[in-house]
Amino acid sequence: MELGSLAGLIKNISKLPGLGPRSARRIVLHLIKNPDTTMMPLIEMLNQVRTEIKICEKCGNVDINSPCHICTNSLRDKHTMCIVEDVGDLWAIERGDFYKGIYHILGGTISALDGRTPEKLNLHSLKDKVEKEKIKEVIIATNATLEGQTTAVYIVDLLKGSNVKFTRIAHGIPMGAELDYMDEGTLTLALKMRQDF
Amino acid sequence: MELGSLAGLIKNISKLPGLGPRSARRIVLHLIKNPDTTMMPLIEMLNQVRTEIKICEKCGNVDINSPCHICTNSLRDKHTMCIVEDVGDLWAIERGDFYKGIYHILGGTISALDGRTPEKLNLHSLKDKVEKEKIKEVIIATNATLEGQTTAVYIVDLLKGSNVKFTRIAHGIPMGAELDYMDEGTLTLALKMRQDF
Repeated sequence: MELGSLAGLIKNISKLPGLGPRSARRIVLHLIKNPDTTMMPLIEMLNQVRTEIKICEKCGNVDINSPCHICTNSLRDKHTMCIVEDVGDLWAIERGDFYKGIYHILGGTISALDGRTPEKLNLHSLKDKVEKEKIKEVIIATNATLEGQTTAVYIVDLLKGSNVKFTRIAHGIPMGAELDYMDEGTLTLALKMRQDF
Repeated sequence: MELGSLAGLIKNISKLPGLGPRSARRIVLHLIKNPDTTMMPLIEMLNQVRTEIKICEKCGNVDINSPCHICTNSLRDKHTMCIVEDVGDLWAIERGDFYKGIYHILGGTISALDGRTPEKLNLHSLKDKVEKEKIKEVIIATNATLEGQTTAVYIVDLLKGSNVKFTRIAHGIPMGAELDYMDEGTLTLALKMRQDF
């Protein structure tokens, strides 16, 4: 019997991605058992993020400043632009600590089924930006899904005529994986895209 | 690259039970994408729970009032007391909507290994309470673990001399389970505890 505000909080938390009623109950119990060490810091940090976070006007990244720390970093190559679907993808690439160019975040993919038309994505400024900022290489890093591929093709079409080199991140067998466990699609692609040894 | 407050929030959320860095990142991304529909309600509800929630002085339940809605409910049998380890166990039993007595929440189990001595549990008032409130039946519903069993034995020992009947919730094969998938311990217990058909 979770009464009133408690039931509301559990319901709210259970709707977060990856959570359900059971995990939400566990989390809420943990929070109410240690209000000073877990509940208060969580509330304070949520409030801080809510007030501090901005969307970068240049690339769509989330940061405490706009333009973000990547767009304003003088050490980064401003003529190489990596196009990703989401901020999570940017975070994933940044964790690799290899890429030194800038980003452009689409905010999703084109999907006819879900009614996500190109107009709903962060695409309107893209052509202008590529030309004005003299981008030399556009790396398309949308996901290896049907929607990701469709979006990639759309972007290449949108930017044709710009004096820019298009590349795609490589698809193939992930590091450490065993062939036996890979799906046929990945195996076929990995064979097709084979490179000189 | 999750900067400042964002990194702090992700770290904080990743320490909640059942979550890790990956699920925390997903949750934070979801929150910052929809600040008005997800972030604000969550902060408000956390604040509400933090200020409203009380620990029931009688049974240890969490509620917006103390004594809680179970201890003050005149329709409940005040002479039957179910002893559980945690508030989550009380919630689980209440979801069954069968038990109509009151509760006593221990706040954990006795565990020599983890240094949880009986003094650290909500046990000091138990003997007094059982005698003063004229409890007739004590149902011990600690978990079917070594610690739960130890705690059960300790409670029976603590309350001996009181004019009270002790019972334990039944252990056996769960509803809908197949024997083939049960562990030997449960099967042996279920056979030992067999009842007349």
